Amino acid sequence: MKELALWQEVQADLQQVEAELLRQVDAPDPVLSQAARHLVQAGGKRLRPAFAILAARCCGAPLERILPLAVALEMIHMATLVHDDVIDASPIRRGRPTVWARWGQELSLHTGDYLFARSLILVATYDDPRIPSVLASVSVKMVQGEIQQMAAAFDLDITLRDYLDRIYRKTALLIAASCELGAIAAGADTATIRHLRYYGRNLGLAFQITDDVLDMVADPEQLGKPIGGDLRQGVITLPAIYALQASPKKQKLIYLLGKRDKTQAEIQEAIQLIKDCGGIKYALDIAEGYLERARKQASYLPPGVARDTLTSLTYYIRTRGF
Amino acid sequence: MKELALWQEVQADLQQVEAELLRQVDAPDPVLSQAARHLVQAGGKRLRPAFAILAARCCGAPLERILPLAVALEMIHMATLVHDDVIDASPIRRGRPTVWARWGQELSLHTGDYLFARSLILVATYDDPRIPSVLASVSVKMVQGEIQQMAAAFDLDITLRDYLDRIYRKTALLIAASCELGAIAAGADTATIRHLRYYGRNLGLAFQITDDVLDMVADPEQLGKPIGGDLRQGVITLPAIYALQASPKKQKLIYLLGKRDKTQAEIQEAIQLIKDCGGIKYALDIAEGYLERARKQASYLPPGVARDTLTSLTYYIRTRGF
Repeated sequence: MKELALWQEVQADLQQVEAELLRQVDAPDPVLSQAARHLVQAGGKRLRPAFAILAARCCGAPLERILPLAVALEMIHMATLVHDDVIDASPIRRGRPTVWARWGQELSLHTGDYLFARSLILVATYDDPRIPSVLASVSVKMVQGEIQQMAAAFDLDITLRDYLDRIYRKTALLIAASCELGAIAAGADTATIRHLRYYGRNLGLAFQITDDVLDMVADPEQLGKPIGGDLRQGVITLPAIYALQASPKKQKLIYLLGKRDKTQAEIQEAIQLIKDCGGIKYALDIAEGYLERARKQASYLPPGVARDTLTSLTYYIRTRGF
Repeated sequence: MKELALWQEVQADLQQVEAELLRQVDAPDPVLSQAARHLVQAGGKRLRPAFAILAARCCGAPLERILPLAVALEMIHMATLVHDDVIDASPIRRGRPTVWARWGQELSLHTGDYLFARSLILVATYDDPRIPSVLASVSVKMVQGEIQQMAAAFDLDITLRDYLDRIYRKTALLIAASCELGAIAAGADTATIRHLRYYGRNLGLAFQITDDVLDMVADPEQLGKPIGGDLRQGVITLPAIYALQASPKKQKLIYLLGKRDKTQAEIQEAIQLIKDCGGIKYALDIAEGYLERARKQASYLPPGVARDTLTSLTYYIRTRGF
């Protein structure tokens, strides 16, 4: 899988997204500008803009049509990250100090609110009422997902269904909306909009499952933060849910996962138990099922380079190391 | 000044706002619902919905047309309050424990994000693109105002102009937008929209100046929190700006206002110095100037009960005790 070749299709567009992002987060206040620029420059895969652009391209729309929306989607994503870092008191994200670590709680809170509000200015430039409407309802559900995660912390009775519902709200919804809104902004027909939404939903679920797996098995350097962060915070993800049923050392695992203030050695031990009983493989198999469904939805789209890239992305998600 | 008689004009409408607010903040998650309901039931003057309704009534629109917008405006206001309480670590607002005090930082942050996002769903029901556009730009400027206030904490060199700019963003903008959007939703002509926006801006400035005065002179029981909160947090408001120039005990005042972790006695002493040199009277005179301008703008509106109520509200602002 050549990652660069894959992204090349949208590379030039994403460079424009990057320039526009920097322009949009600029503020009259120097500290706010700095914090927002720091967030942009911390990087990220820009998945949401990439999906919106590819979806719009599938439907024959030029970049100008989709650029404000693509930038708005990334700003909404960044707004959730900066608030998450306050809540998790995260010192590091993507290998760099967070806004919270560098500028503190008050500015982090304002920066999140600011980015979200700024994104709405961009969204308001479209005259299709479905665009603000979808984004508003996605934003509401994303917050509900965060609260579900908060309420379920250290709850070892969480079911597969609870988990899928949570990651759907937390991640898949905004990726689905990126695909859907890209198509809407491009003036696509209802069937194409629906296929792109389902593509995004399935891919988003697979993406979050893979993310949750990587939190247990990635190279910390590539991940940009220590591994086992979810276990530390009591967030029970798919490999753990499986292992809580399947592990021969179930009691030990229950003890370790339920314990607050785990040591790094305890986290390592829990991850080992999860690996030993096949929890990682199980989660990746589930992710693969969603990727297959995403591929099927892609096959219904108008043929072309954009569709091929959307299909290729389903392979990239499976093999990414970070 | 009979307060009840004045509000009677919009009382029935505000009861519908109240019912709709409770309906709108309802969430599938019980804790989120509780926190949001707690916020609604903590009360408040519902000034923003009242202004939107009166503006729409001036232009002959029925309540149904304006209700979603009126509720959205109050939700945006509530979202800023709940985030402010996190930042200020406020245990009490309007005489009741804050969401922050009762449910903690994480839920407060989510509740603010949730209310803001929910308000956008209501706003998206209007097909006039000016409505989301005005609200997005007002929200951006409100955050900038918060950051200005943060940056200016304990800055005794703040000018009258800085102060007015800050309270414009912090308070007057959303009140101006309430009036303006009420008119827009009612399909008013450009001149009427402009008069209502200017009415709201002037009234909003006077309202915040009065609020800042009350923070020094109100009955703590009526205020619902201890007095001197601004001075404690280093927020230098109009009476203090004046006193820093005019007080014969300027050095003592500089010492007291610049001091962090003031005692209650020091706060009382600072307030006394501000009162002694006429700081309160000065601020109220400035407020009165804005109220006169608001009244002038109201005089250009279509005559009727709604216009009379808007005019009467300018007298109420001046005389309110809380």
